Amino acid sequence: MSDGALFNAVADFIADLQDRICAAVEDVERGVTFGEQIWKRPGGGGGRSRVIQGGSVFEKAGVNTSVVHGTVPTQLAGELPGGGDTFRAAGISLVIHPVSPMVPTVHANFRRIERGGHGWFGGGADLTPNYLYEEDAVHFHRVWRDVCARHPVADYAAWKQWCDDYFYIPHRGEHRGIGGIFFDHVSDAPEEMWAFVQDAGTAFIDAYLPIVRRRADEPWGERERTHQLVRRGRYVEFNLLYDRGTKFGLSSAGNPESILMSLPDTARWIWGYKVEPGSWEERSLDVLRKPRQWVASDGELA
Amino acid sequence: MSDGALFNAVADFIADLQDRICAAVEDVERGVTFGEQIWKRPGGGGGRSRVIQGGSVFEKAGVNTSVVHGTVPTQLAGELPGGGDTFRAAGISLVIHPVSPMVPTVHANFRRIERGGHGWFGGGADLTPNYLYEEDAVHFHRVWRDVCARHPVADYAAWKQWCDDYFYIPHRGEHRGIGGIFFDHVSDAPEEMWAFVQDAGTAFIDAYLPIVRRRADEPWGERERTHQLVRRGRYVEFNLLYDRGTKFGLSSAGNPESILMSLPDTARWIWGYKVEPGSWEERSLDVLRKPRQWVASDGELA
Repeated sequence: MSDGALFNAVADFIADLQDRICAAVEDVERGVTFGEQIWKRPGGGGGRSRVIQGGSVFEKAGVNTSVVHGTVPTQLAGELPGGGDTFRAAGISLVIHPVSPMVPTVHANFRRIERGGHGWFGGGADLTPNYLYEEDAVHFHRVWRDVCARHPVADYAAWKQWCDDYFYIPHRGEHRGIGGIFFDHVSDAPEEMWAFVQDAGTAFIDAYLPIVRRRADEPWGERERTHQLVRRGRYVEFNLLYDRGTKFGLSSAGNPESILMSLPDTARWIWGYKVEPGSWEERSLDVLRKPRQWVASDGELA
Repeated sequence: MSDGALFNAVADFIADLQDRICAAVEDVERGVTFGEQIWKRPGGGGGRSRVIQGGSVFEKAGVNTSVVHGTVPTQLAGELPGGGDTFRAAGISLVIHPVSPMVPTVHANFRRIERGGHGWFGGGADLTPNYLYEEDAVHFHRVWRDVCARHPVADYAAWKQWCDDYFYIPHRGEHRGIGGIFFDHVSDAPEEMWAFVQDAGTAFIDAYLPIVRRRADEPWGERERTHQLVRRGRYVEFNLLYDRGTKFGLSSAGNPESILMSLPDTARWIWGYKVEPGSWEERSLDVLRKPRQWVASDGELA
């Protein structure tokens, strides 16, 4: 496949994947449906943002696609691999913040970027529970482990580690969540990577929505809500202080609202907030401080 | 005065100023009093954090002092002027987020930093209203203009502009508030600057608390609260994405809680939030997009 054909195929795929993910989310939500905003980027291209807000299951969920092209923004000239003054990028990015503190937040992103004659894939998915259900963490990781196992070009063990390393909040000594996979700048074997990205993008639905279904009716109260809002504060800290995608988006694109859609509806910073020793909250924090191996990296051992 | 005597005098002054500001804030608050946390910095020095949370007038108010010294952190080696591997810093930093959306948030900071034989003063104060009362903006600026007028070493016009330039959120095309004064790396005329800093630190009380007293009983409801929480989201965006002090603190100090005390108790990000054309909210946003000259720079013209 030529670079141009591959890029167009990615653009078509993410539009279709956005439809499928939104339909699957609405099927769980039932209360409200996605609103849509189409936006144009002044420098070339644009995007389609879809957002649920104030749902019965999802407090705020954004599933965005964008296909942009143009001159490499000055701030990014040194950061984007490849040479040349022009670039194009096609990607899907989603963040889902549920109403219930017992249902984890999730993020996923798959993208192809090309600069001059050099192109690469990047992406991944990671889960951020406020209250740890170990079987959910295992389920989430098992889906990604199994997708990787189907594609020799993918490396679950390395990409799980990359995810833990990337989603880290140094000033807190905490990871953002319990991880998943993360990969970037993968330029080798584009045909094989393209097959992997399609498989992984589709797998998101099975990785996340079964967890929502099984936790949506767990009981919770004010204590759990407060803990959730404080944890959402940490999510905001990571995204604004450390996330390269957010910085990339704010310096390259025309739509800050769409990039900052990753932020939760509400976040809190409570001075002196502490979890009780031995509590569920503390056990949930422990795995953010010391990431675990949730599944064997080799599928046959699981 | 020797460098050492000056530094010690600054350290004594900020401890006393913290007491005076906290007493003045408690006098308006009446509901709750400041809690205190003393912390040590592993690399040398420490601080005294004082926080009000959940008050009747102040939702979250932090008035912190720190006096730290030690080896220049690697991340800051290129950013701190002067040479040498050691530094010391003494400063007071405060952020006050009131309960009422009609009462503005305020920030102020005064500090002396020395690296090797080179020392400088920095600081300033700026106001962030959700609902603009022009006379409050004029009052705030007039206090700073008048303090500057008493000290030939100070330059209100330049420092007002510096404040507007510094507290800017480029991806929103908005300034964080209606400004005030900001100055940094002022190494000339240390004795004169020291006299100015003492005058300015003390002036904070007159610059802010009269505004709180006159707006604390203004009526407000859900609409104003929502607008306030969205504006607090912008405050968080500035502090985490762009504020050098926050980055400096997170890379140099031992106490992230104390640095992030500047964040509001609660912030919201509402997809598609818009103010009504011609509304008070819109008029208040206008002055964040186009900073105004609130008082004549020359005191005699006011």
